[in-house]
Amino acid sequence: MLRIVILGAGNVATHLFQAFFKAENVVVAQVYNRSETALKPFSEKTKTVVSLDELEEADVYLVCAKDDAVKSLAEKIPFKNKLIAHTSGSVPLLDVSKKNGVFYPLQTFSKEVPVDFSKIPICLEASDENSFKILQNLAGSISERNYRISTEQRKSLHLAAVFVCNFTNYLYRVGEEICEENKVPFEILYALMEETARKATEKSPKETQTGPAARGDQKTIDQHLEQLKNPVFKEIYTLLSQKIATT
Amino acid sequence: MLRIVILGAGNVATHLFQAFFKAENVVVAQVYNRSETALKPFSEKTKTVVSLDELEEADVYLVCAKDDAVKSLAEKIPFKNKLIAHTSGSVPLLDVSKKNGVFYPLQTFSKEVPVDFSKIPICLEASDENSFKILQNLAGSISERNYRISTEQRKSLHLAAVFVCNFTNYLYRVGEEICEENKVPFEILYALMEETARKATEKSPKETQTGPAARGDQKTIDQHLEQLKNPVFKEIYTLLSQKIATT
Repeated sequence: MLRIVILGAGNVATHLFQAFFKAENVVVAQVYNRSETALKPFSEKTKTVVSLDELEEADVYLVCAKDDAVKSLAEKIPFKNKLIAHTSGSVPLLDVSKKNGVFYPLQTFSKEVPVDFSKIPICLEASDENSFKILQNLAGSISERNYRISTEQRKSLHLAAVFVCNFTNYLYRVGEEICEENKVPFEILYALMEETARKATEKSPKETQTGPAARGDQKTIDQHLEQLKNPVFKEIYTLLSQKIATT
Repeated sequence: MLRIVILGAGNVATHLFQAFFKAENVVVAQVYNRSETALKPFSEKTKTVVSLDELEEADVYLVCAKDDAVKSLAEKIPFKNKLIAHTSGSVPLLDVSKKNGVFYPLQTFSKEVPVDFSKIPICLEASDENSFKILQNLAGSISERNYRISTEQRKSLHLAAVFVCNFTNYLYRVGEEICEENKVPFEILYALMEETARKATEKSPKETQTGPAARGDQKTIDQHLEQLKNPVFKEIYTLLSQKIATT
């Protein structure tokens, strides 16, 4: 049985807590957060604390803080012999304890949307083999997928995620706006969006590139540019079509 | 019982044929194509013809040709009193018969990937109400979702689809390349890609925009730009971050 303490009460902390709470071989002994209000949702299910002095002994301290707060919070944990791991994609492996680790679930979390952790890849890194095994155990308790990922690799994953998640979401927004302007229900595109994502997991997206730019259909490209009223959308259409055409 | 003839043997024709073949109230009387080789996969299940003179009478002639070939093929169908519909997103409602229609399934089709039509929206348009009802029947035999969409609306859907499908797929390619360069398995991003698409169908993507640009995190943006070696990726990162930051 692994005893863990979660530090933080944001999206990642919330979803991880829910997953660990259901896991068989894990006990979340405490959840820490500076603000008592944010701890409310946890307080029915485990002990909550607002002071780091009240932290109990545990096998893993999981720091689920914002990127720029991870280090300073981890440093304040008063157990320097215990495994301290953070959940951030862009923060390197820290050196705040004798045993340090990273436990980075690669997914986009919204507070209200429930998450099935079983398919979420968890990227692991640790200062020593024993700590790595503990993190692997912890990951295995909630997900089928874990990977040994170095700090450098994690940085590149984080960067790639900006393209496939944040930028992709922005393109969905453009699609939604085009639909709204033309009084077409955006939902007509849902199946296409989901299939495009699914397909990219079955075949390399290099092989499945379609559309006017990929087939060199300048007539359609010109027609689309004429249809686009928003200069921002025109700019994006032009740049991405160019890049697709020349790859 | 609806008797239809499919003209074409490409991706859309193939997938529609498979769906109609299983449908209860539809019979695909013939499949036409100029090339006999392309007709092989159909020939075990229905009559195939390589000459338009051999076309039989049917309730609907479904022209599944490439955008720039749709019109000329439809014009050659020797039944001027019958409903002739095409399956193209960018071709307007034609005027090649007494009864004309559009039957546009909005999805990305690859020849080898099987398709579940039941969730695919089918965009319908017709020259008259009776023809519209026939197309609605036809759509209903394979899909739960059909929409009355004008030529103008369909053009805007087609444009929006370039953003949410073709451009999105290109961003997946960028993600894949970043992973390859850094020796990280691209599959680690699959769950994120699928969840990003799924989430956009639950909430407006306006509300779920995350990432460094959305939260004005210039430090991470600068770091990412430094990480990116490929000038093309830098250019895309810069443009999309700018646009996200100013929306």
